[in-house]
Amino acid sequence: MSLSLQAVMETCQSRLEKMFHLYLRKTPTASAELQKAIEYGVMNGGKRLRPLLVYLVGHTFAASFENMDAAATTIEMIHSYSLIHDDLPAMDNADLRRGKASCHKAFNEALAILAGDSLQPLAFEILAVHPSTLSAEQRLAMIQVLANASGMEGMAAGQALDMGTAKTLDDLIKMYRLKTGALLIAAVQLGMLAANQIEHLASLEKFAAAVGLAFQLQDDLLDIEKTAQQIGKTVGVDAANCKKTYVSFVGVEKTREKISLLFAEARQALECLGEKKKLLDEFLEMVFQRDS
Amino acid sequence: MSLSLQAVMETCQSRLEKMFHLYLRKTPTASAELQKAIEYGVMNGGKRLRPLLVYLVGHTFAASFENMDAAATTIEMIHSYSLIHDDLPAMDNADLRRGKASCHKAFNEALAILAGDSLQPLAFEILAVHPSTLSAEQRLAMIQVLANASGMEGMAAGQALDMGTAKTLDDLIKMYRLKTGALLIAAVQLGMLAANQIEHLASLEKFAAAVGLAFQLQDDLLDIEKTAQQIGKTVGVDAANCKKTYVSFVGVEKTREKISLLFAEARQALECLGEKKKLLDEFLEMVFQRDS
Repeated sequence: MSLSLQAVMETCQSRLEKMFHLYLRKTPTASAELQKAIEYGVMNGGKRLRPLLVYLVGHTFAASFENMDAAATTIEMIHSYSLIHDDLPAMDNADLRRGKASCHKAFNEALAILAGDSLQPLAFEILAVHPSTLSAEQRLAMIQVLANASGMEGMAAGQALDMGTAKTLDDLIKMYRLKTGALLIAAVQLGMLAANQIEHLASLEKFAAAVGLAFQLQDDLLDIEKTAQQIGKTVGVDAANCKKTYVSFVGVEKTREKISLLFAEARQALECLGEKKKLLDEFLEMVFQRDS
Repeated sequence: MSLSLQAVMETCQSRLEKMFHLYLRKTPTASAELQKAIEYGVMNGGKRLRPLLVYLVGHTFAASFENMDAAATTIEMIHSYSLIHDDLPAMDNADLRRGKASCHKAFNEALAILAGDSLQPLAFEILAVHPSTLSAEQRLAMIQVLANASGMEGMAAGQALDMGTAKTLDDLIKMYRLKTGALLIAAVQLGMLAANQIEHLASLEKFAAAVGLAFQLQDDLLDIEKTAQQIGKTVGVDAANCKKTYVSFVGVEKTREKISLLFAEARQALECLGEKKKLLDEFLEMVFQRDS
């Protein structure tokens, strides 16, 4: 029987919590300071959107939660490492993250760099070894998906482009698709891999791409509309860093319209699932209505 | 028929070159700047000690070169990323690396961080997908070995300890074993995995641990004895960063003695291989006599 969105969200939170405890709190530890910085960067009350998407997609196609745990955990580790590094002075120079000091502020720059550096191999090790009934081939496919989405053809390239100045709206959209979209598409692919499901993959990738871009545009709006207390991270960062955003290219109203269009596109992409679309449809409405 | 050390070294260089071209010069590229920074950090005339060790160990036990290419390439990528990040201002703050500007000097800090960040997933992706006759299980074992050696229980932990101050000689040795030893032990393990060889693994791990520590002690001597031109990187870095080294704990003479002891230990560990020890023995003498 299929669980409700709320039930999958609660399951996601509690399973992630257990996985993080299992893999981040090993003893004896080689460097206690490094371990603390890693844990600080990961267990920080984030929205856990990417692992949730892994679980939702996998559950939609009847994967067991055991077979999704490694993928859900590691995609969040990769996302967490990227936030730790993005906040560094040489990057976005952000002092706040989710209402707390960013990792390099709570520790120091060297430890923040190393915490991010440590999360990457840990993620791939977990995909390789975490107990489940996944075949060796499924594990390798998951490693490929996560690696490809996070490196020089995905998230890291997006962050590199973000360090430059987008000259056109197309540049900006390309950057967003790499920086945020690649990992959300990977979440869908990982959920499908856990379920050994190929049918509807292209539609769900389209769904994830639209949600990813919409999410980034929502961030652009939030960055100018909210106070730091409301969204829990340094705001006005884009303006302070002289960064172009979707809003600075087309204004607030056209950004809102584009977000609506993207969500409509995402909704449309789910149609092929028939009755199976329910969970992902609810997820979509939740993201659509987010205000932080 | 077994190749000579010289022949394996030449094979190593040319196979690595081909692999780097294959994986680092993809077109179209998502971010040309990032790709340049990655290539700069990897294709820099390094000694290629770790991949050489993979090939030597694997060849000793009759693995095909095809089955060792991914392991050799990716261990060098991991080593290269670690050098890029270690040179950053927040870490060792070194302007020179192998006679050239370090990556963040040639590009900028953000790109250097991202180049290192991109090399990690690329390494694990290559282990997962590079064509060979390795089984899926062998690939997963390689991923586990490389990931474990480079993260919070290995190299990254060593670098974190290196950012602190070693209070005792034991602290220092622990740091060296993690920072340099872990990846050299991984090189041996990867070569053995490529050959599907278990026998003699413990002896070869001992060999690699001794070589790794000896290598680090040689570096400590080189850092005070040579000019930058001779060794091609910023020298006196340890003293400038107020870092304790083996030399600062026990002096030059006792360091030399310890290095000789470690090489004797490494030689001894090879005895169990009988006639098969030749290649690794020659490798050992080459490292023993290095002056840069």
